[in-house]
Amino acid sequence: MAHVQVVSTVFGVGCVENDEIAILDTPFPHAGAVIEATGSLDVLTRCSVRERVALQGATLLAPLGSPRAVWGVGLNYQSKAAHTGRGLPSEPILYLGAPSAVLAPDAEVAVPSGRTVEMDYEGEVAIIIGRRLYRADPEQVWPSIAGITAANDMTARDVMRATATPTLAKSFPGFNPLGASVCTVDEFADRDCIPVRTWLNDELRQDDTSAGMIFSVPDLLARISWFAALEPGDVVLTGTPAGTGQDRGSYLTPGDRIRIEVGPVLPLVTTVAAPSRDHPSAG
Amino acid sequence: MAHVQVVSTVFGVGCVENDEIAILDTPFPHAGAVIEATGSLDVLTRCSVRERVALQGATLLAPLGSPRAVWGVGLNYQSKAAHTGRGLPSEPILYLGAPSAVLAPDAEVAVPSGRTVEMDYEGEVAIIIGRRLYRADPEQVWPSIAGITAANDMTARDVMRATATPTLAKSFPGFNPLGASVCTVDEFADRDCIPVRTWLNDELRQDDTSAGMIFSVPDLLARISWFAALEPGDVVLTGTPAGTGQDRGSYLTPGDRIRIEVGPVLPLVTTVAAPSRDHPSAG
Repeated sequence: MAHVQVVSTVFGVGCVENDEIAILDTPFPHAGAVIEATGSLDVLTRCSVRERVALQGATLLAPLGSPRAVWGVGLNYQSKAAHTGRGLPSEPILYLGAPSAVLAPDAEVAVPSGRTVEMDYEGEVAIIIGRRLYRADPEQVWPSIAGITAANDMTARDVMRATATPTLAKSFPGFNPLGASVCTVDEFADRDCIPVRTWLNDELRQDDTSAGMIFSVPDLLARISWFAALEPGDVVLTGTPAGTGQDRGSYLTPGDRIRIEVGPVLPLVTTVAAPSRDHPSAG
Repeated sequence: MAHVQVVSTVFGVGCVENDEIAILDTPFPHAGAVIEATGSLDVLTRCSVRERVALQGATLLAPLGSPRAVWGVGLNYQSKAAHTGRGLPSEPILYLGAPSAVLAPDAEVAVPSGRTVEMDYEGEVAIIIGRRLYRADPEQVWPSIAGITAANDMTARDVMRATATPTLAKSFPGFNPLGASVCTVDEFADRDCIPVRTWLNDELRQDDTSAGMIFSVPDLLARISWFAALEPGDVVLTGTPAGTGQDRGSYLTPGDRIRIEVGPVLPLVTTVAAPSRDHPSAG
């Protein structure tokens, strides 16, 4: 397996090497396109380096572009279940989010004007499929994963209460920041114990590891694959630990800055913009 | 607006003209790619014709490739609501289906082995977005639609009962045949009264029009757009009328042939294959 950390920049796809980005000689625009076309990030280890740019100050683009399927799961951490007082689910609560909700690193997300006020963050480990999984067993899952990144699976809690439909509560434009880099599985010290930490305005709010999942990564993806085929480039958001705004009854407001760290993945930073001026978009 | 009916073939993208397909001089592989890149099918009216092939016997490919978002709606026909005895919903019951479920015209769908036995058809009008819709009003919807095709929004009724999750009941591989052609809106005699008919083994099972929808096309898409942005190339399945297998307690079996006709769209034919021999796919 390749041992790389990939970013997308205005100069092209690059590998993070200490304080630099090695921009590669490849036509692929981002890691998602590499994975969709080749099933892994391995091909990038054989590209020559076109130039090197400083990591600090570099503008990073969405590392997966606009993925096709974005699966998610409700209540998948023991810490979260303990906090809500709900029992552990016997089956994962699965949903799809709209790909149009995906947001690049360091971008702003607008509070949807009007109805939504209870906007919340959810720091998560995001898994990127490399090879098709259908009716798979858990032991087939890790070898089929091409990469891991960080996700902020943002949720409008009021919409969730009103509709009981995660797809609707989580699909507003910008509600799904992904990035900032994509790491191969080998980049993680322990793939079964991936740290997930979320800071809100520099205050640590979530601090757990994937070892606290109710349905582990192999179990979760195998279960999804009994209902639908997971294809190369598809993304699975694996649930969020305790410490969301919901857990303390406070929600995001303009100017808030959320930073999510998932192991060696470059921090995923998102800022809440002022409410959008009800700018409908048609035509 | 363009007045065309588009198919995808092994020879390239073509327009249906009486008994022939005019293969166009265009690099786009299918109507979905044209719409995603240009927002409509208009550009195809300006392409020169490379060759003409007979429509009869031509192998048609998936006209939208693998679309990104596939939205669906539960219980959206008055005829279906009357049959189930359920009251009319006050809000549409919305869900996303996995793009990996999309099937080409004239292809076979396998009964998922093991758990699923109550496999059912749902003939539907499928709308293809041409221009972004976000927080749109109903009157903005029709001008933003690039095309219409037929869909078979197949459902595992037993999975739906067990999970109450349309995404899981409708996302098995091949459960979403789309096609056979894509028509511009102008191809329909009355866009507010689009005929939908489904035959099972040459027996007419569904026969209604979109005038019988509970949430009309403009109303439905506008409502979705208050939760998520609909992007060019996204597909919205608009619900199925009365007459599904569920309505008579009978389900699909191997060898069954479903034909769905949506106005002038070329008939969408799907055959049920023998149960898959539990062929898991991983790696």
